[in-house]
Amino acid sequence: MSRGIFITVEGLDGCGKSTQIGLMREYLAQKGFEVLMTREPGGTKISEKIRELLLDARNKEMNSTTELLLYAAARSQLVAEVIKPAVNEGKAVICDRFMDSTFAYQGFGRGLDLKLLADINNVAVDGMTPDVTFFFDLDPETALKRRLGSSKADRIEAEDMEFHRRVYEGYKKAASMFPGRIRTVDAGRSIEEIAADVRKILDDLISQVRR
Amino acid sequence: MSRGIFITVEGLDGCGKSTQIGLMREYLAQKGFEVLMTREPGGTKISEKIRELLLDARNKEMNSTTELLLYAAARSQLVAEVIKPAVNEGKAVICDRFMDSTFAYQGFGRGLDLKLLADINNVAVDGMTPDVTFFFDLDPETALKRRLGSSKADRIEAEDMEFHRRVYEGYKKAASMFPGRIRTVDAGRSIEEIAADVRKILDDLISQVRR
Repeated sequence: MSRGIFITVEGLDGCGKSTQIGLMREYLAQKGFEVLMTREPGGTKISEKIRELLLDARNKEMNSTTELLLYAAARSQLVAEVIKPAVNEGKAVICDRFMDSTFAYQGFGRGLDLKLLADINNVAVDGMTPDVTFFFDLDPETALKRRLGSSKADRIEAEDMEFHRRVYEGYKKAASMFPGRIRTVDAGRSIEEIAADVRKILDDLISQVRR
Repeated sequence: MSRGIFITVEGLDGCGKSTQIGLMREYLAQKGFEVLMTREPGGTKISEKIRELLLDARNKEMNSTTELLLYAAARSQLVAEVIKPAVNEGKAVICDRFMDSTFAYQGFGRGLDLKLLADINNVAVDGMTPDVTFFFDLDPETALKRRLGSSKADRIEAEDMEFHRRVYEGYKKAASMFPGRIRTVDAGRSIEEIAADVRKILDDLISQVRR
């Protein structure tokens, strides 16, 4: 068996990530991978407790730096306890949100210093840069419409439209900075059209790791 | 009223910090200060929740980087929500443990990179370096004996003697690096002898801020 692969999935809430992650999982399993799905913030006992703190809508007084450091703490634990061991064992790991969320949400959304943010991301990621990152590109207005009617908004989702517009610009910026790793997929189309693009990108990745 | 003052108190568990903090509070109140006492990790609603995570003896799988980032997150929130506003209002803030604990416990105890640690400390402290830091100097063996018989050991206290010896060396190192800010007090003497030294150092500090 070849080495494992590490895939991350990014985009605004409402962009259709969850549906595509489910399809990715099936496709990778068909291709013979043992698939491990996880999410950020969360994915370990400690990280899920950090998630509760981060998303609790009552924690309105949380300052932006605390938020940044808590996301980094949750990531550090997830990488050490779950992602790194699984990839080393040859698994395909799919992570719903990862370091590019920090760039988009804390960097562009909150306006934190991008150099500081990159330094802290590096500490948390500990060398585990994703092999490929899917950015499901859907404009903030459409994403909001899709999100409405679903569950109650958490602390981040409850931010105003201006915040989500800045986050979206952050994702576009990240995609332009790392065009090799981050693959932008137009998420305004049908589930099957999007999934076809995703499969093509996964095929490329698999052929690389199995070469 | 002159500007406020920011005092931190450091040393191994069992070194007698709590007793001296109580006496400091009384002395500063006599001198006309409104005194605010707080502690790390903790001191705000969010930071106390982070404290629970950090000290829970069941969280054995926590990696050192996660620990570092969680302490920094708790500190960042405490500085923004409590310490900075109080000092700006002219209060005397006494904080039980602060950034030098990170240097001693995560730097020397856990062996994390000191440059990385300084960078993350800087982010969390956000310019609020203490005016004076008391290091209550008591060797690890004596500190342990004093600690035994008190409450059940938390996740950090439960580390072995080698760990606490390294932490102690970390404190000595910090004190030698910042001799102006960190005042070493021999904590192997009687409560009154120690308190007399503390009062002298506080008198110096007060005369500076009221000059």
